[in-house]
Amino acid sequence: MTRTHDAFFERTQQVLPLLREARPLVQCLTNSVTTNFVANVLLALGASPAMADVPDEAAVMARTAGAVLVNLGTPSGEQRQAMLEAAVAAHESATPWVLDPVGVGALPVRTALATRLVELCPSVIRGNASEIRALAGQGAGARGVDSVDDVDDAREAAVALARSANTVVAVSGQVDLITDGSTIVRVENGDPLFTSITGAGCALGAAVAAFAATHEDLLTTTVAACVTYAVAGELAACGARGPGSFSVGLLDSLATIDASAVAARARLS
Amino acid sequence: MTRTHDAFFERTQQVLPLLREARPLVQCLTNSVTTNFVANVLLALGASPAMADVPDEAAVMARTAGAVLVNLGTPSGEQRQAMLEAAVAAHESATPWVLDPVGVGALPVRTALATRLVELCPSVIRGNASEIRALAGQGAGARGVDSVDDVDDAREAAVALARSANTVVAVSGQVDLITDGSTIVRVENGDPLFTSITGAGCALGAAVAAFAATHEDLLTTTVAACVTYAVAGELAACGARGPGSFSVGLLDSLATIDASAVAARARLS
Amino acid sequence: MTRTHDAFFERTQQVLPLLREARPLVQCLTNSVTTNFVANVLLALGASPAMADVPDEAAVMARTAGAVLVNLGTPSGEQRQAMLEAAVAAHESATPWVLDPVGVGALPVRTALATRLVELCPSVIRGNASEIRALAGQGAGARGVDSVDDVDDAREAAVALARSANTVVAVSGQVDLITDGSTIVRVENGDPLFTSITGAGCALGAAVAAFAATHEDLLTTTVAACVTYAVAGELAACGARGPGSFSVGLLDSLATIDASAVAARARLS
Repeated sequence: MTRTHDAFFERTQQVLPLLREARPLVQCLTNSVTTNFVANVLLALGASPAMADVPDEAAVMARTAGAVLVNLGTPSGEQRQAMLEAAVAAHESATPWVLDPVGVGALPVRTALATRLVELCPSVIRGNASEIRALAGQGAGARGVDSVDDVDDAREAAVALARSANTVVAVSGQVDLITDGSTIVRVENGDPLFTSITGAGCALGAAVAAFAATHEDLLTTTVAACVTYAVAGELAACGARGPGSFSVGLLDSLATIDASAVAARARLS
Repeated sequence: MTRTHDAFFERTQQVLPLLREARPLVQCLTNSVTTNFVANVLLALGASPAMADVPDEAAVMARTAGAVLVNLGTPSGEQRQAMLEAAVAAHESATPWVLDPVGVGALPVRTALATRLVELCPSVIRGNASEIRALAGQGAGARGVDSVDDVDDAREAAVALARSANTVVAVSGQVDLITDGSTIVRVENGDPLFTSITGAGCALGAAVAAFAATHEDLLTTTVAACVTYAVAGELAACGARGPGSFSVGLLDSLATIDASAVAARARLS
Repeated sequence: MTRTHDAFFERTQQVLPLLREARPLVQCLTNSVTTNFVANVLLALGASPAMADVPDEAAVMARTAGAVLVNLGTPSGEQRQAMLEAAVAAHESATPWVLDPVGVGALPVRTALATRLVELCPSVIRGNASEIRALAGQGAGARGVDSVDDVDDAREAAVALARSANTVVAVSGQVDLITDGSTIVRVENGDPLFTSITGAGCALGAAVAAFAATHEDLLTTTVAACVTYAVAGELAACGARGPGSFSVGLLDSLATIDASAVAARARLS
């Protein structure tokens, strides 16, 4: 590992303590399937979740929040309006905001919305390989909300999207690939049990938002979020008897993990 | 047990392995109370849940999904529209679809909707005794979403409904009663802890949809879903200290159970 | 402790057995983040939850329910309409109903709605210190959905609100403060882990509704709900490794706790 790598790796370790100290308010406009789990993951990490997703309230909160998450999993009409209000307000007030384009490419309403949202300059876009490829104008999108592509198939799409949208892109899968359009970081942590619970990706998107609320460099905070989350999953998998106990253990791990435990297991390249 | 019984019983055991191999996409238009649990039950069984319940997207997915679940628990205006779109598309494209008429009879909006949905030829209707009786034009419906009738009180209603709607009807309770209008199968597995967690019925409806996605005979797949789910609950109840740990253990059991474990405990008649 | 105190304390112990015997239907119009947890807490306590929050159905159920909960956490347009319908019906038919003004003060849509709802005579108002102060016309409201005030800072506001709205007010925090405008009761039970899970306050609001469904004196039932819930949390915290297992253990404790276990740990003043 080069000296540059070392310095970057050390900076990623400093984000979790900053997050816990700041206890940032993270506003979530997210899907109805995983909202409870997403809120609990944010609390476990030390952030303060607020699920304000009603029109005429979303912008009020986006202007004062530490970060905003917009997740397109179940985009009702009111939520779509609130998402646009929140993204505009976040952009205007320099609140970091994260776009999680669930199911984009495969389903028309959210695909149209995602195109508009990308123009409102998300700080980070987090999705699976099929979603990122679809947002970059490649591929036909996911199968439902599941990726049909490998993370490495989305490498070029991620770099192109990061450049065109001037954002950080995180592609989640067996390996996570994070890029700001020039540097590419791979996080090789995780556990297959993540694919056996609903909301594993949604909660990672929320974690990315919480880490971004520290206002450190976005490539650094996004990598820190991905590696912290993945390592907490590895620890939870040790004691799990299946997806139910994995999900419970993941919340316990996220609440108790510290930077040194993450550093000891981190596999970045 | 007669030879016919034996042959039917053996066929039910073949559905779970088929489901796990196919990993079918199961689209759910379901209530906001239990959507997370329903998705996790589908993942644990080996299916791939997709909660696409927005108008102008619901039909797109219903045409390509392996099966569709329509659960009337909290039917917002947009969901009601999406449910009709999905049911029409499922019917037209021969996608198996399951109707779960939560609270029908007691509450007017969903009762009106259920009447229209039954005309769109659901493959299976799963409900408690009061809901099935109400759909068949008997009784005044549930108390809230809880049955006020015993499963056997709904026996005639279930047979009549199965014949008039040309569907399989599953009545859930202490015993499950499943009928295609001529044959009646009773599943005598289960555990009282199922009544102490929310979504136990909703998740069974989703399991029925996932098993139907194998495109085997619908009486067979519905019985297989009911017995697999009930036996997984019996196993989970062994290690449970209350409803919280039962719910966690149920997901663990569903993910690890196999056809032989189900067969060893199945009590069909 | 005076004889009056003793008599009040004894009456609070009689509510949980009454609740379990009556198994009241508790209608919840509540937020999408915590609805699953709220329903499971009600089931664990022995109540029967029904999440009927659609216009044209909400009043039907409110007239026959044992109690109604209106929680403003994620108030969509349809929910706001249904909440007003339910509150009117509950008021007219003397169904006890509980208002949980989540985020009031900080966010405009729900603040306007809360003002109208208070005029419909809620039986109990339960919130954190910032929400209660905002409802009483003091302070600027919460930070997102988190209190920025201590419970004792809201003491005067709680008494004033209880008198002006002719209701019982419960202020939740490290200590719970409950008042009918003349008597003030403090519940000093609880555990810091309550702040690490989402929905801890929402579920307490639902518990307050369930206890109110016994139709005993509302100050008594509200104190009984708060102390039962807090003591169950203390028991759950003993075996918890973090917020995930605390949440599971809380449901287990609520389902198994009895009046004598509550009495042994209760710290009222």
